[in-house]
Amino acid sequence: MSSTLELTQQLIQLDSITPRDEGCQELMIARLEDMGFTIERMPFGDVSNFWAHRGHEGPLLCFAGHTDVVPTGPVEQWQSHPFQPTIRNGHLFGRGAADMKASLAAFITATERFVAAKPHHAGTIAFLITSDEEGVATDGSVRVVDALEARGQHIDYCIVGEPTSDQRFGDTIKNGRRGSLSGQLIVHGIQGHIAYPQLAKNPIHLAAPALAELAAEVWDHGNDYFPPTSWQVSNIHAGTGATNVIPGHCDIKFNFRFSTEHTAETLKDRVHQILDRHGLAYELHWQLSGNPFITQPGALTDAIGSAIHEVTGVETALSTTGGTSDGRFIKRIARELVEFGPINASIHKLNECVSVDDIEPLAKVYEKTLHKLLS
Amino acid sequence: MSSTLELTQQLIQLDSITPRDEGCQELMIARLEDMGFTIERMPFGDVSNFWAHRGHEGPLLCFAGHTDVVPTGPVEQWQSHPFQPTIRNGHLFGRGAADMKASLAAFITATERFVAAKPHHAGTIAFLITSDEEGVATDGSVRVVDALEARGQHIDYCIVGEPTSDQRFGDTIKNGRRGSLSGQLIVHGIQGHIAYPQLAKNPIHLAAPALAELAAEVWDHGNDYFPPTSWQVSNIHAGTGATNVIPGHCDIKFNFRFSTEHTAETLKDRVHQILDRHGLAYELHWQLSGNPFITQPGALTDAIGSAIHEVTGVETALSTTGGTSDGRFIKRIARELVEFGPINASIHKLNECVSVDDIEPLAKVYEKTLHKLLS
Repeated sequence: MSSTLELTQQLIQLDSITPRDEGCQELMIARLEDMGFTIERMPFGDVSNFWAHRGHEGPLLCFAGHTDVVPTGPVEQWQSHPFQPTIRNGHLFGRGAADMKASLAAFITATERFVAAKPHHAGTIAFLITSDEEGVATDGSVRVVDALEARGQHIDYCIVGEPTSDQRFGDTIKNGRRGSLSGQLIVHGIQGHIAYPQLAKNPIHLAAPALAELAAEVWDHGNDYFPPTSWQVSNIHAGTGATNVIPGHCDIKFNFRFSTEHTAETLKDRVHQILDRHGLAYELHWQLSGNPFITQPGALTDAIGSAIHEVTGVETALSTTGGTSDGRFIKRIARELVEFGPINASIHKLNECVSVDDIEPLAKVYEKTLHKLLS
Repeated sequence: MSSTLELTQQLIQLDSITPRDEGCQELMIARLEDMGFTIERMPFGDVSNFWAHRGHEGPLLCFAGHTDVVPTGPVEQWQSHPFQPTIRNGHLFGRGAADMKASLAAFITATERFVAAKPHHAGTIAFLITSDEEGVATDGSVRVVDALEARGQHIDYCIVGEPTSDQRFGDTIKNGRRGSLSGQLIVHGIQGHIAYPQLAKNPIHLAAPALAELAAEVWDHGNDYFPPTSWQVSNIHAGTGATNVIPGHCDIKFNFRFSTEHTAETLKDRVHQILDRHGLAYELHWQLSGNPFITQPGALTDAIGSAIHEVTGVETALSTTGGTSDGRFIKRIARELVEFGPINASIHKLNECVSVDDIEPLAKVYEKTLHKLLS
């Protein structure tokens, strides 16, 4: 069995549902200490984090990731237990297999091989690992980055191990992410008996034309790096269940994933314009989860792109689609940042899995990237 | 304090949220037994009902009503506790004050005074009381009417104590009701991550334009007896609370109150046409709660109309607007049926109330009607 597969299995066995770490980080730390890394454990609240480094000079290449996983959903609907790593049909099944314990294992084995080959490598290798990426993400990478920034620590190249491959292993790396802006909208009406609509104001009826307009809106057409900005309602709730009552308010939660063609402020303005034009009485609470960020093609994208090509023969593409990741926090102190990992089709779902044949190549890509940037 | 006000307060103190009765009916029964009524308790499931009568000959005048009330909504938004009857600014506040505990109290005190004045009155006085009018209404009046019908019991004059007054106490009696047709609509989409909208179909976005069109539709213009048909959404729910998931379906409950210009079938056809034109994938379950019914002007409308005029000086109007009531069930065995009660502006709302000055006149109207029809 490959050492990367073995370590992936050991990590999956630890049921580190966010924000619990359950020993994953100590498993990684033991291996890093054996390689001569200096370890700084940086717990905040109930979140485990650590920063580790080997070397004292630039450039600094940081592997970043998270040991926490999303909840399993109904365990009985998994074909094998989510925390008992199981190989079936060439795939390793388990919660976190793809997001992102295979990447964590590959970080470690790639570094072990690189350090064995180049004990006096150039630059510095670092690890920034959290157990709060899948949850509220307030005591994880963002706090570690705050602390690093406070002491002037910068990162030259950051590789986040998020599962970015789409159809085929190696086909996609993320060189940026869209912004994420959420809104909690309460449309006010006047509650009343459904038989006396003239005495009430139905907030669902009032909201519907505005929602239809927001859903049909073209916010932008994207640009070279970003797909078009999208607006989606995740939740709408009005009514208490009683079928003879016009409810007093309609609660709507929505989210923008936005390109650099917009800022949070320009999006807010347009939403308010539409709501106001429909004459709605409403409250709207905004939450900005992250601004869009981008790493222009350069040394890091070249290194990892050519490493992928050498290992897999695949021409990788740069992309900024998909969810947020802790990249949005780390980019603040990182000159160049990309995300690269296994195929993401099964993440956050039942029967999450990673192809066994992709695990060792993943470690090889990380190892080759180290050689390219720190030799 | 008037005895009607006192009994109204006693009834409000019993938190008979539908279908619970919480002792309201036993309070009424004790008073009726004192007057020599024969009581038949007719519980079905968890619903309390009773039929009571005094007399053995025709004509039979029946007071009909319900002891249950709708839920309070947020108690902290009431100016006084909904089950602590409180008089402020000439109004008695409490859940059920107008719908319909003042009427129940007035039924009792009116009958007490009439029986005291005419112990050997003509005809028969009856009471048909349920605790399941505001809820599903399956084990309430409809079951009692089934039982009465099975034994050949008919009603000549039925007065339902629903709050029918509009601007001024006495201005409106209901001599019929619109039909009520409900729909439970499930609009199907495809669930997915909010960051990958191209892989999902948002059912809220799909439903919004159709809802906007349905809300704007003019169904008919009503006729001599009926106001225009109205369509209202009572509930809309989609999403599990998670803010990063596009939900798989959107659940919508709506209701028609319809005139004799429509049948249930013509309304269903138009709704399906609109949903189909928007290309929605949906399920729609219909429930017909009642077809429209009407009592032509006659002995009962004359008696109660002149009683109202004598007590209040108001010229009452016949109307068929407003909610369904158990009248739709009772009409089946009732030759003439009207509904009359206090001002309905506050019913089913926060801070439901009835004017203290209307409570004793309400009892007087019922009492005079007894004199006119059973002397």
